[in-house]
Amino acid sequence: MTNPVTVEVTRGLLVESRHRGSVAVVDGDGKLVFSLGDIEAAVFPRSACKAMQALPLIESGAADAYGFGDKELALACASHNGEDEHVALAASMLSRAGRNAEALECGAHWSMSQKVLIQQARALDAPTALHNNCSGKHAGFICTCCHQHIEPKGYVGYEHPLQVEIRAAIESLTGAVLGAESCGTDGCSIPTYAVPLKSLAHGFAKMATGVGLEPLRAKASRRLIEACMAEPFYVAGTGRACTELMQLAPGRIFAKTGAEGVFCAAIPEKGIAIALKCDDGATRAAEATVAATLARFFETESEVHAALTAFAATSMRNWNGIHVGDIRVTSVLTGK
Amino acid sequence: MTNPVTVEVTRGLLVESRHRGSVAVVDGDGKLVFSLGDIEAAVFPRSACKAMQALPLIESGAADAYGFGDKELALACASHNGEDEHVALAASMLSRAGRNAEALECGAHWSMSQKVLIQQARALDAPTALHNNCSGKHAGFICTCCHQHIEPKGYVGYEHPLQVEIRAAIESLTGAVLGAESCGTDGCSIPTYAVPLKSLAHGFAKMATGVGLEPLRAKASRRLIEACMAEPFYVAGTGRACTELMQLAPGRIFAKTGAEGVFCAAIPEKGIAIALKCDDGATRAAEATVAATLARFFETESEVHAALTAFAATSMRNWNGIHVGDIRVTSVLTGK
Repeated sequence: MTNPVTVEVTRGLLVESRHRGSVAVVDGDGKLVFSLGDIEAAVFPRSACKAMQALPLIESGAADAYGFGDKELALACASHNGEDEHVALAASMLSRAGRNAEALECGAHWSMSQKVLIQQARALDAPTALHNNCSGKHAGFICTCCHQHIEPKGYVGYEHPLQVEIRAAIESLTGAVLGAESCGTDGCSIPTYAVPLKSLAHGFAKMATGVGLEPLRAKASRRLIEACMAEPFYVAGTGRACTELMQLAPGRIFAKTGAEGVFCAAIPEKGIAIALKCDDGATRAAEATVAATLARFFETESEVHAALTAFAATSMRNWNGIHVGDIRVTSVLTGK
Repeated sequence: MTNPVTVEVTRGLLVESRHRGSVAVVDGDGKLVFSLGDIEAAVFPRSACKAMQALPLIESGAADAYGFGDKELALACASHNGEDEHVALAASMLSRAGRNAEALECGAHWSMSQKVLIQQARALDAPTALHNNCSGKHAGFICTCCHQHIEPKGYVGYEHPLQVEIRAAIESLTGAVLGAESCGTDGCSIPTYAVPLKSLAHGFAKMATGVGLEPLRAKASRRLIEACMAEPFYVAGTGRACTELMQLAPGRIFAKTGAEGVFCAAIPEKGIAIALKCDDGATRAAEATVAATLARFFETESEVHAALTAFAATSMRNWNGIHVGDIRVTSVLTGK
């Protein structure tokens, strides 16, 4: 099955580039509400499922024991820019468990934001693991281990008790069977498991609605999603899509990107969640696609619909600020 | 027509992302030697046709008048990193025509190379137009105008005599009719014209072989292509694909990238040229595709074939240096 063209990039009067992809929108019962392309194909959620990976942090009691609020929980679900606030909060989370940056096993990298990278280059000799976009997630992992008296060393390993716990949580939410054959290694060294796109959407719909979840998990899920919606800066950062999508409809939209063109999102009040994958892994296409898909679930005349539709269309300007083309979604997404 | 999958990106045991594209390989007579996908579709060559755009620099006599050697001509065909040598040479070219950076109309941007960007961030408050990856091309444009006593101001405009001259050169080489309806604005503000992929390949095959060209143009074409092959650092820079592809077979391969997944290349000794476009605009796919296509024209047992095949396959490592997957070309390219 060839997935449809979901996003076009224009220049002058012509289409210069095209992105294909698949989209699944599912409710808490697993009912398909909208779809494009092959939604049974397995995709690696990558960072888009960080909120699922953060469930043990709450369910173990670690988050409460260490006094974590919305900011810390948002950072545990984040792919952040490595801005000063992100770095400081990750360090603070570790310190509450009596640890420091040396415990992080995510590796170090410069910020994914050019603006922040320039600031970092001027202030630092080199980035540390605290600057890694996953440092909040990893700080959460280490806190989860420490609170349960599990040795955190090696916590990124497939067989480590924490990863076993995370694997079980994702299996339970998505209904997918996860094992070595569906497992890859993520950028930050933890396991990432390929799951059918529809199952991924269903997992997030369960988190957003609580349907089919035990009370403890339903509460933990709601708390994580509400924390991200309450503190969107800590989920990504200045100028980033996740942050801006959640800021344009405060408390109404949850959105989280993943590498290689994945995006997951939920609209709790509508009882639905979205999972999508751009075939070619392009971030620009995933961002346009998630905004256009979210827009389908808000009234056409509403401010949120207008803001999402605007977000889905990017006017491209060159180094002199001249308009040269647009990134736009196709009619398969807009229905027009 | 749906173009075939030419490049796959793997993670663990699975394919995570897929790139589609088209490839045309043509000889000097315009005979199709190899093709994939829709090669009649018009694509914007973007920076991949800078060598065509540099023809007036030589044909007008400007290059000789200002004493330009291989390095200057390579820089006139370049999308460079903005490394110190690139910036200094662009300034030097302008000074020979009695001009300076203020004459450049390309706009300013930080280096496209993260390593160079970090050095720039530490050394500069902000980049100048000399750091723009197109500054050598624009310096060449200004020199071409000055030598011909044409006012350079406004040289990026569609109606400026220099752009009229460039448009005629590209029309003559490719056989395509170029006009406002096929014209877009490039990143550096000059016009870029969509031409059928096969015609673009034919244009470069004519440049590489001289077939069908008047003596002056044949000589100018050969001189530009030989200059790029002789000074590949000045065509791109440290760690860049164009530079490395030309370095791995000195004097035998010409290669030039363009934005949005375009690559043009030639093997003068084989009398052929390549033009390719990745549907989604991905650079990683264009780089793998051009290397694998070039490899088809070298003996399987040769060192150049081995080096190109290795270049076409990228082992992806994460922040901890762990192998997580590969970028690899598919059998439609390798023929295996």
